[in-house]
Amino acid sequence: MKEYRNMTKEELLREKEQLEAAYEGFRKRRLHLDMSRGKPSVAQLELSNELMDVLNSETYFMDETGNDCRNYGILTGIPEAKRLMGQMSEVNPNDMIIYGNSSLSVMFDSISRSYTHGVCGNTPWCKLDKIKWLCPAPGYDRHFKITEYFGFEMITIPMHEDGPDMDLIEEYVKDPAVKGIWCVPKYSNPQGITYSEETCRRFAALEPAAPDFRIYWDNAYSIHHLYEDPELQDYLPEELALCREYGHPDMIYKFISTSKVTFPGSGLAAVAASQNNLKDFKKHMSIQTIGHDKLNQLRHVRFFGNMANMTEHMKRHAAILRPKFETVENTLEEELGGLGIGSWTRPKGGYFISFDSMEGCAKAIVARCADVGVKMTPAGATYPYGIDPKDSNIRIAPSFPTTRELGLATKVFILSVKLVSIDKLLAEMN
Amino acid sequence: MKEYRNMTKEELLREKEQLEAAYEGFRKRRLHLDMSRGKPSVAQLELSNELMDVLNSETYFMDETGNDCRNYGILTGIPEAKRLMGQMSEVNPNDMIIYGNSSLSVMFDSISRSYTHGVCGNTPWCKLDKIKWLCPAPGYDRHFKITEYFGFEMITIPMHEDGPDMDLIEEYVKDPAVKGIWCVPKYSNPQGITYSEETCRRFAALEPAAPDFRIYWDNAYSIHHLYEDPELQDYLPEELALCREYGHPDMIYKFISTSKVTFPGSGLAAVAASQNNLKDFKKHMSIQTIGHDKLNQLRHVRFFGNMANMTEHMKRHAAILRPKFETVENTLEEELGGLGIGSWTRPKGGYFISFDSMEGCAKAIVARCADVGVKMTPAGATYPYGIDPKDSNIRIAPSFPTTRELGLATKVFILSVKLVSIDKLLAEMN
Repeated sequence: MKEYRNMTKEELLREKEQLEAAYEGFRKRRLHLDMSRGKPSVAQLELSNELMDVLNSETYFMDETGNDCRNYGILTGIPEAKRLMGQMSEVNPNDMIIYGNSSLSVMFDSISRSYTHGVCGNTPWCKLDKIKWLCPAPGYDRHFKITEYFGFEMITIPMHEDGPDMDLIEEYVKDPAVKGIWCVPKYSNPQGITYSEETCRRFAALEPAAPDFRIYWDNAYSIHHLYEDPELQDYLPEELALCREYGHPDMIYKFISTSKVTFPGSGLAAVAASQNNLKDFKKHMSIQTIGHDKLNQLRHVRFFGNMANMTEHMKRHAAILRPKFETVENTLEEELGGLGIGSWTRPKGGYFISFDSMEGCAKAIVARCADVGVKMTPAGATYPYGIDPKDSNIRIAPSFPTTRELGLATKVFILSVKLVSIDKLLAEMN
Repeated sequence: MKEYRNMTKEELLREKEQLEAAYEGFRKRRLHLDMSRGKPSVAQLELSNELMDVLNSETYFMDETGNDCRNYGILTGIPEAKRLMGQMSEVNPNDMIIYGNSSLSVMFDSISRSYTHGVCGNTPWCKLDKIKWLCPAPGYDRHFKITEYFGFEMITIPMHEDGPDMDLIEEYVKDPAVKGIWCVPKYSNPQGITYSEETCRRFAALEPAAPDFRIYWDNAYSIHHLYEDPELQDYLPEELALCREYGHPDMIYKFISTSKVTFPGSGLAAVAASQNNLKDFKKHMSIQTIGHDKLNQLRHVRFFGNMANMTEHMKRHAAILRPKFETVENTLEEELGGLGIGSWTRPKGGYFISFDSMEGCAKAIVARCADVGVKMTPAGATYPYGIDPKDSNIRIAPSFPTTRELGLATKVFILSVKLVSIDKLLAEMN
């Protein structure tokens, strides 16, 4: 395959003509396809339907200490849920609080708490002139939305193969206005990168100027492997232990949820942190709520029984997800390989493939896709303030469509990439 | 029965001796009884066990518009849940947002949102020097805890038979620092008072100086009658409509939940408000969460089907609660009637009986109860900052104990009231 960059104007125009015809062919099909969000597919949801069977009117509704899960009480979660989620999070159950249905809202509430009441006795952030926040990017758009909503100055940190640029982070945390960092350390959103052990150790060794600096360690895809072979799985050190080892036990909050294990919106979220930090969380919680849904905690515990069963359950998710990832990756390779107009990741877990077009093309590609009925994550969404300085990153979410839909959507995406790239190259020639 | 106040010192001492003997008899029984919280009893929880049956692995998980309740999406609640909760709240479903499992946390989040981001474009409260909040008292301790946590100056408003002192409220809202008021307008916590129509109209007609003043209308006991006969039920006007009628549609947030309809902690909470206000709520929500537990919404809708069934369901709660209230009220009447050492309410709904001892006795009475194993709500809890200026109000929660336990607990309570009252009268004689 000849690189587009090496084609003559005539060759490009001829190529463009053929591509436009194919593209217009898709327009006639009036597609309604969506590769924009990391939503599990219907087939994946079906895997957890039995979650709805474990509690019924004849059930014993007590937790293992005899507390009635139908009534008020047990602010921080039933013991068996702490144990299960503790195993999932690789920490001691005593270092856990079980929350409601969304880890995103636990993160939001944590930032809101820090803003209104401060972190562990430090000045509430609302009383400070400026709060800065480190944002490894490309990253998770909803993280960035939270820190934007609170008016923090977001500082983009480039992502490398082994995690965010630690040299920069080590430099930035010397500024006491820098209060936190967003991290998706395993199978990152959107690149599928897992932080290396060195990166994790450098995180644990950070010496931030602000005593209330916190690492928001969103381990959203901790057990979300695409492959069963351990050789094809990424490994992430347990960061709470590392932070303790480096003498910074309070520097990290670790978040997990079962949103992509059982049902999004009807799962369990949890936070793992030091006792000092948990005290902070609990004080806030004790005012904010009387407690979370303990029946749903019981439901999850009884459905899985133990971590081994949850791991088996994740293999069934992987069996559905893997071919979808491979379809996209292989089609990209077949159609774009060697053209020099884009690169993409081949993650071993998580929910996304990250695509980088030539500079200045991402917005136009996403618009082209939308124009014939294929919805992609808005270009720029993976950067703070929704602005990708190179306008090149596009997040591909292959999970929700069926394999057939995915094939169509990927073809449309590739046509759009080619067309926009040719336009750019032609414009450069003039 | 002779009033204690009219007894001679000798009569009081003789009475005291007998009472102390009875009281010490209870100590030997090593009781562990709890009349402190408005918790439904096990028998009440059993009424909703079938809620756990309506969803199972064979269920159709779509809402009425075909959205899969197992997946992400539908931020403000499924339509049929809005309809059901709208009926419960007597408002248009379009004026509703369905939340998670706790209306308390919706109120907390609403205050937190106002503090961090302001109300409908007004200055965030965290940027203001002083926020004042009106607190009809005795009232709900957890309300007061929220406004205390945010550092608002709480102003106690006395409660009358027909609701809070409206003359005072009309006066206080002329201060632009006054940003809100807590209300439990029906079967109030702890007195069981329902606001009169005049009170409701005066609320709707308020002309607060602060454009961001909001009435927190916590209709926690809207359908929680103790008696089936409509003559024995209280009636509360629909306040959203009244506020609209008086030209103040944005002045009120109305909160409801099914915490005491189905399962506390595993129910649905909702807010009803004007479109302007809902826009505020939604903007915040869209950053805070991806959505609430829609399967639990579906579960509730399918369990009840319609409002008529929910009303029937509440009659079954009443059948369990009514004899408990009457046991306490009748025992109080038999044992304390005519003694002039206490008065109490006879609510027609809700979860509490409010008791007023002679001034300066409440703390001592609660301590006496605790000393022989009967837990009461801490004296003072029903007032802002936990300080009852007269030290006389005690909240009695008859719902959780069995009838036998309740009989014992009430006897201990009465003995404690008598003993503390005699001590006070004797002290006055010296």
